[in-house]
Amino acid sequence: MRRLDVNLGARGYPVLIGAGLLGDADDWAPQLGTRSLIVTSETVAGLYVDRVREALGKHPHAVHVLPDGDSAKSLDHVERIVSAALDAGVARDGTFIALGGGAVGDVTGFAAAVYQRGVGYIQAPTTLLAQLDSAVGGKTAVNHPLGKNLVGAFHQPRCVITDVDTLKTLPPRELRAGLAEAIKYALLEGESLFDRLDAMMPRLLEAEPEATTELVHRCCSIKARFVEHDETDHGERALLNLGHSFGHAIESAYAGKLLHGEAVAIGCVMAASLSRALGWLEPGLFGRIEGVFRAAGLPVGLPAPAPAAAEIIERMQRDKKVTDGVLKLVLLHRLGQAELTGDYPYAALVLTVREFVEAAG
Amino acid sequence: MRRLDVNLGARGYPVLIGAGLLGDADDWAPQLGTRSLIVTSETVAGLYVDRVREALGKHPHAVHVLPDGDSAKSLDHVERIVSAALDAGVARDGTFIALGGGAVGDVTGFAAAVYQRGVGYIQAPTTLLAQLDSAVGGKTAVNHPLGKNLVGAFHQPRCVITDVDTLKTLPPRELRAGLAEAIKYALLEGESLFDRLDAMMPRLLEAEPEATTELVHRCCSIKARFVEHDETDHGERALLNLGHSFGHAIESAYAGKLLHGEAVAIGCVMAASLSRALGWLEPGLFGRIEGVFRAAGLPVGLPAPAPAAAEIIERMQRDKKVTDGVLKLVLLHRLGQAELTGDYPYAALVLTVREFVEAAG
Repeated sequence: MRRLDVNLGARGYPVLIGAGLLGDADDWAPQLGTRSLIVTSETVAGLYVDRVREALGKHPHAVHVLPDGDSAKSLDHVERIVSAALDAGVARDGTFIALGGGAVGDVTGFAAAVYQRGVGYIQAPTTLLAQLDSAVGGKTAVNHPLGKNLVGAFHQPRCVITDVDTLKTLPPRELRAGLAEAIKYALLEGESLFDRLDAMMPRLLEAEPEATTELVHRCCSIKARFVEHDETDHGERALLNLGHSFGHAIESAYAGKLLHGEAVAIGCVMAASLSRALGWLEPGLFGRIEGVFRAAGLPVGLPAPAPAAAEIIERMQRDKKVTDGVLKLVLLHRLGQAELTGDYPYAALVLTVREFVEAAG
Repeated sequence: MRRLDVNLGARGYPVLIGAGLLGDADDWAPQLGTRSLIVTSETVAGLYVDRVREALGKHPHAVHVLPDGDSAKSLDHVERIVSAALDAGVARDGTFIALGGGAVGDVTGFAAAVYQRGVGYIQAPTTLLAQLDSAVGGKTAVNHPLGKNLVGAFHQPRCVITDVDTLKTLPPRELRAGLAEAIKYALLEGESLFDRLDAMMPRLLEAEPEATTELVHRCCSIKARFVEHDETDHGERALLNLGHSFGHAIESAYAGKLLHGEAVAIGCVMAASLSRALGWLEPGLFGRIEGVFRAAGLPVGLPAPAPAAAEIIERMQRDKKVTDGVLKLVLLHRLGQAELTGDYPYAALVLTVREFVEAAG
């Protein structure tokens, strides 16, 4: 087992990463309140909820099951989680446990943030994407009919319990989608992680526990550093959105046909392409970036039929990173050197989106 | 104009109290972000929204109107406020303005807490209850089908702009309901405020601006002290709930027939009655407490037809102050000396509720 700590003073917490952690009572015991509500999704409930319930032992708890997928991220489901918590008698000193992927973590964390004005929660991520990214950092949210993650809160978990064994049951497509965020971290971090990721790729695609534990530990360590410096995302934490302004717009324009990680992969390639078009990107890097996404089995262009370029751009304009009408993007100079900037020609952004739409045929 | 400051470091803010403040551009200008959304209720919109819009002048803003009353405090209305903010182009550096009574302040503050994971907001309370109590302290919430204020957040406003002139259009019943919270503050604070309140009562019942400004300033100062010591309500701030465990249960059991302040008045008298039954209350004080509520034109007993005692008690058990099955109540010893305690005989609580139900006939 590896451990790292997110150092946020009174809001700090440990991240435990390893094989078999879900079933280990010693991981759970220190962080539980008086009474807990396990919130999970249908598929994960069938696979892992009994293991967690056994590990909780006599600790009083109840289980609430959400539908699979992003549809669980709604205010309606927040209301249902609150009902379940009330029925289970969870009080202000109780705890929510988010057992599942990113959607379960986001909605459960948000429900914990607002239930009786805030209770503690534990992240127990079961997808690679959630393990190496979303379970750490306290960003919680639900979607709004007009866009993703528009309603949310910063609410740090009490701890993160990451059992890499759960990846053995993860569909390969979702595993690859998780690798997209790992590649994003490598783009931000620099050559060393980029090369290591490249070297470990075959083992990662097999969900080999040792390689995965190392990768999750490295990505979470990077994220923890960003979060420690900028907990509420008013500064450098924004760099973590590399590929996400494009990615969110693409993900919503494709209306469920692309996984978040797949959209982020395409988004990172588009950000790199725009960076290259602006003459900012180190020569030769664009090909290496495309190459590593391909090696992970991820898309590097828009699937046909593509939405209209205007639609993608309009969706990008609704991004939370829009200030005074200017959309700030994370653009790349070289591995380990990214920049959040609104100082690029708007026409270049439009051209990049058009190129990708046209390439989709 | 009087001013007081809530000292919470980076989250601190001023409370401005006086006549005519809504129309004064100088009060508004310093606290506005890039773009604002005024959230108000139907009746208040008709009376005051133009005054505020004129004061905002060229500052870009939009208006969203909620229904009157507590029905606005729902997740559904949060979603609509979010839609209105998105339509108006309010970004993370924007501001919500809560123009109205306690319900408008609670739901708007909560919407501000969760919109794009948090934007600033201004409280502009237009009822006495909101002015002397709920606009200060950062408690925001919406209701849940299973109970009041079960979904919420601690989110401090950027400032509070309290125009006591708005009380001139407040229905007398609502003015009296506001005085219930003022009396509660006097019970917590001691003889000096209790006597002053008693002496000013005729002027307060006329909404006389000078008397009201003094009262609001004193009540907000008391509240600010509690909030400064216990921002997230884990300790002494709970004393502010004097009369509220009873009051919330009564308010919901009467399903809209009682105003919050009326329920709090009855709740304070019930808390005093239980305190007396336990032998805790200073002799003679019960009559004085009943007397001041009566002088304010408030109920001191349950109106007929009363709900069953069991229903009231069951609703009290769902209170947020329940820990390990024990309902903590704020009970009184003397003016200025209250105590949050679960250390009372449960039978005495049941008996007090029964007495009040039977007295209703």
